[in-house]
This record gives sequence, C-alpha cells and structure tokens, in this order.
Amino acid sequence: MLPLAITMGCPAGIGPEIILKYFSKIHNKFSAPIIVAGDIAVLDFYINALQIDCSLIPWQVGDYAPIEQGIIPVFKTSQLSPTDIHPGIFSKKTSIAMASAISMSVQGIQNGYFSGICTCPISKESLNKSGCHYPGHTEMLADLTRCSGQVMMLAGTSLRVTLASIHCSIDQVPALLNIKSLYSLYQTTYSALVKDFNIPSPKIAVAALNPHAGEGGMFGTEEQEIIFPSILKAQKQGMDIHGPFPPDTIFVNAAQGKYDAVVCMCHDQGLIPFKLLHFKDGVNITLGLPIVRTSVDHGTAYDIAGKGTADPASLTAAIELCHTIIQNRTTTQTNNAKG
Amino acid sequence: MLPLAITMGCPAGIGPEIILKYFSKIHNKFSAPIIVAGDIAVLDFYINALQIDCSLIPWQVGDYAPIEQGIIPVFKTSQLSPTDIHPGIFSKKTSIAMASAISMSVQGIQNGYFSGICTCPISKESLNKSGCHYPGHTEMLADLTRCSGQVMMLAGTSLRVTLASIHCSIDQVPALLNIKSLYSLYQTTYSALVKDFNIPSPKIAVAALNPHAGEGGMFGTEEQEIIFPSILKAQKQGMDIHGPFPPDTIFVNAAQGKYDAVVCMCHDQGLIPFKLLHFKDGVNITLGLPIVRTSVDHGTAYDIAGKGTADPASLTAAIELCHTIIQNRTTTQTNNAKG
Repeated sequence: MLPLAITMGCPAGIGPEIILKYFSKIHNKFSAPIIVAGDIAVLDFYINALQIDCSLIPWQVGDYAPIEQGIIPVFKTSQLSPTDIHPGIFSKKTSIAMASAISMSVQGIQNGYFSGICTCPISKESLNKSGCHYPGHTEMLADLTRCSGQVMMLAGTSLRVTLASIHCSIDQVPALLNIKSLYSLYQTTYSALVKDFNIPSPKIAVAALNPHAGEGGMFGTEEQEIIFPSILKAQKQGMDIHGPFPPDTIFVNAAQGKYDAVVCMCHDQGLIPFKLLHFKDGVNITLGLPIVRTSVDHGTAYDIAGKGTADPASLTAAIELCHTIIQNRTTTQTNNAKG
Repeated sequence: MLPLAITMGCPAGIGPEIILKYFSKIHNKFSAPIIVAGDIAVLDFYINALQIDCSLIPWQVGDYAPIEQGIIPVFKTSQLSPTDIHPGIFSKKTSIAMASAISMSVQGIQNGYFSGICTCPISKESLNKSGCHYPGHTEMLADLTRCSGQVMMLAGTSLRVTLASIHCSIDQVPALLNIKSLYSLYQTTYSALVKDFNIPSPKIAVAALNPHAGEGGMFGTEEQEIIFPSILKAQKQGMDIHGPFPPDTIFVNAAQGKYDAVVCMCHDQGLIPFKLLHFKDGVNITLGLPIVRTSVDHGTAYDIAGKGTADPASLTAAIELCHTIIQNRTTTQTNNAKG
C-alpha cells in the first residue's frame, strides 16, 4: 500500500503539535507508511518548544519509510525559517506553506505516490491569506480534484452522520432541501457505507427537519413534501433507508446500533449529538471526492497553540480511518475486478 | 409534608403500568406520602393484565397514607368500569377520566391537601376527546392555575435545558425570539435553579440559534441582534449567564458540569442532547406555575401499552425530583420568612 500523507495544517495552530504527539506514541498497526506533508522548520519549532521526543527524516518519492515510534518522515512542501513561526499567529508566509502542504499532497495522490490524505486543521482566514479563496478544505480539495457534490460525514465508533446543509443560517435551511439533492445525498452516504466502511447492506436513518417530524404537518411540511418522497425514491432503488424520524430520538437509536448512519438536515442537528458522543475521537470525512480524505474533527485552536495541551485523539482516529477506507476501497476494487 | 399526587395519565397508555411498577419496587426515601390520582378500575385492570404485585387502597382527604412497597393509595378521580379499558385505544370515557385526574389533583393542591403533582403521559388527541381543548398538560395546568409564561425545563443528573420555542416548525423559530421573552426565560430558569434546585449561584449557558453562533453574522444575525443583547441585559441584572455559544459544543461543556442549565433556542436543539444523555431518566418540569409539577419525559406509548415492557425509570426520577423541589421551595420560603 502506498504511503498515506498527513498535512501539517496551519503552522500557527495545533496541527503540528498533534502530529508530533501522534508519532511519539505511534504503534504500528498499518500496512502503509505514514508521511507528514509539511515544513521541517515548523515541526522542529514545536519539537523544541514542547520537548516532544521525535526526529524528522526527509522523505522523497520512492523512499521506503518505516513506521517507527518517534521517527517522522517529512515530505517537504515548503521551507519556512524558524523566525516565521509564532503559535497562535499566522502570516502570509505560514499560510502559503499551509496551502502548499495540501495542494502538493493532492498532487502526490494524483501522481500515484500517496494512497490518501489525512488533514490537520486550517482556518478560513489563513486560507484566504495564502491566496486560496475557499471557505475551507472541502472546497479546495473539490477544486484540486475537479469535482463537485461533496458530502461531509462525521464518523465515530457509535455514530455516523451526513449533512444536507452545512454552513448557513437556520432560516436558510428549508430552502436548501429538495428531493433531488437529498436523494443524491442518500446515494453518496449509502455508497460510502458499502465501499469505505465495508458494510454490505447498510441501514440508513433520515432525521426530520422539524420537531416530532412535523407532527403530521402541524410543525412544518418539509417532511411530507420533500423528505418522505426523497426516502421513498431511495427505497424504490433498493436502499434500506427509513424516516423521517423525530430528531430528538433518532440519534439514541442510531448510537445503539440500529442504523449505520443518520442523514441530518442541518449542521447542529448532526453535530450536537455527534460531538456529545465523540468529542475527542470524531473524524470528518469528505465523501464524493475521487481521493480518500479524512480530517480531524476540530479547528486550529489558536488559543492553545504551542501550549502542549492539544489532544491527538481525533488525529489518531482520522489516520486509522483513512487507512481503513483505503484498504476497503482497494478490496472492493479488487473484488470488482475479479467479479 | 403534604402528600404528592401522581396523575394516572391516559388509561390506554403506559401511565398506569409505570405507576404499578413504581409502587411494586418502591423504597421509601420520602418525607411525604405518595398518592395516585386516578381510577381504581384502570389500575386494577393493569394489575391483573400484567400480574403486578400491588394492592389498591382508597385514599380520602386527611387519610394517613404510609409509603409501603406494593400498597397504592388511590384518590378516586373517576369511576370507569373494567369493560371501558382497552390498552392502546382511548375513548371519550377514558379521556374524561384522564382529564379529571389532572383537574382534581390541581384542585387538591389549591385546597391545600397535596404538595405538588407528578403527571403520567396523556395525548393531545385524548385530551381533545375529553372536551379539554389544550395542546397538552402545560397549557391545561396554566389555565387551571390562571397564569401564563410557563417554561419547559428538562432535567437530568448531567444536563438541564430550558426552551425558548417548543412546538413549531424550524422556519417559525427566528420570529419567535426577542430580547424581552429571552430575558424573561433567563429569569425563570435562574429562579428555578435557585429555588427548586437549591443552587445558590447558578451558572447558565445560552445556546446560539445558528451554526458556529452565527460566525460573526455570516450564518445569521439573531446572535448579534437578539441573543447577545438579551444576555447582556441579564448579566447587568447580576445573573451569571454566558453565550451565545456554538450549539455543537455547549452541551458537552454543560454535561461536564461547567453550567447548571443551557437555555436552548428550539425544541430539538435542547431535546437531541438531553435525550442522548437521559433517554430513560429524564424529567420534564413546568416552570412558572404557582404549583410544583414534574412529569415523565415520554409519551403515552400506545403501541406498547398493556404489554408489560414500559420502563418506570422516568417516573421514578420525576417523583423524586417533584419531592426535592417541594422540599427546596419549602426551605427557601421558611428561610425567607426567617430572614
């Protein structure tokens, strides 16, 4: 299996720190090497600042990179100087380095020397400062891989959610829902459960938009007019998909294992239960890209950058899931080729 | 302390069953007797149908009612015949009996022979069938006690939430929020935490309406225009209240004990995290009434009525909390009278 690349994230955020912490405690469970796409000076800065027991070794295409505790193979994607780095404060220079780690890793996948990427946090502001005018990773990756229709999935050991709307105000949500886009979301969710999570017959729940699933139209009509017809359409195509369910109880059922994923109508409907169950070990996955991409489920946390208190649990989970998805996709492809 | 009354709820729902299960396992922790306001025939029906080891004794005003396992003192509020009772199917007769248990219990408090009530589930449909045209318990109790401005609080051992809007569609929520009504909600929440929960200096969190608390206005303006000013007003009055916080993380912090309650902007924002943490043992409390009222946090569950599978955990928690609130209010009043 080709190496998996971890992008360093914003040099002023907690990305470098959680990478170092991950490597300082790593236990090889993987069949693929793990490479950090980033900047030697940045990683060195945090090794010294936080006294983390790690050594950096430069990595080049074709190098064999053993996974060994405390040894970090670095694919150099920028060359900052030590004086450029200030925890909590990003600059144009650090932002360009941050964006470069992302774009060079994607190129690496496209050129066939990485199997997938796991991304550390960036901020919208630093991304803009780098000259890349995207709201976030997802849109940048979509552009770099020339595709559309991405879906955000948050995955943990007891709950997976996908979102029908993400970054908008609550009052914009109803207008964003329609049968066609919901149906497409169900397809993407279903396909990811089969191919990425290796669940041959996934069972999906769809959350309603309104309380009590609209209470027969008394608390909103989106359930009757949009959500239910979209589910019916998916059921007719053979998907084991059900709902719309009252949002206040469906997550309890899903977390108990009755469903493999819950399709949510808006950001907090999915993120409130997800973060309650997976505050530390949640993973963000971008579905619908031609490449495998997982991400930590938290931000740059500029306020605690450089303080040594960042928790690498989400990165650990994101790396493990990235590796699992790559393996599962490979298996599915191999089986398809054989079949 | 005066007796505490449990209303039987809809005779066709799971109310009678959870009452019987509660009494069959009761361990006296209370300083007040516990009475059931309801119908002998209904309770008898479920004792026989479910083979629960309980005996009914009639209770009248002034009776001493010891709390004893398996002995249920019944304040007769209706007189159905055994043939009227069909699990899962309510009739006009059973609905009138259901409503009578509520109204006679409230009269009982007003006449000074009960200290508070704990209600078992009713349905809106059966309430309408009884001739009482209210959407639910809360509105009926408000009318019976001639007051307005009730607030729904859901309380568990790790999370308490109050709601700024309840039964409406998502698209109606923004228009229901204003500084005056939010401020009043904070006051009611604060006062309940002090008087009912005996927390001398409560700390309250306010959830935002929109993702990322509106992200500086990019995802909605309610935070800047309504929620933040309402919090500022409450802070100026001395309340230890903070926010608006991004909804996806505030419940994690509150459940860890950083806040005594979270004020939520809509139904599912509060109920999704609450039910995830307190699916079995949640209690619904109506704040802002002149009487103490707690309730189970679930519905009539007509689909499982009479099957013996209903869980009395929420009723147990609701009775215990009703008792605690009555004690705390009495202590506060006594202290105020002394002070």
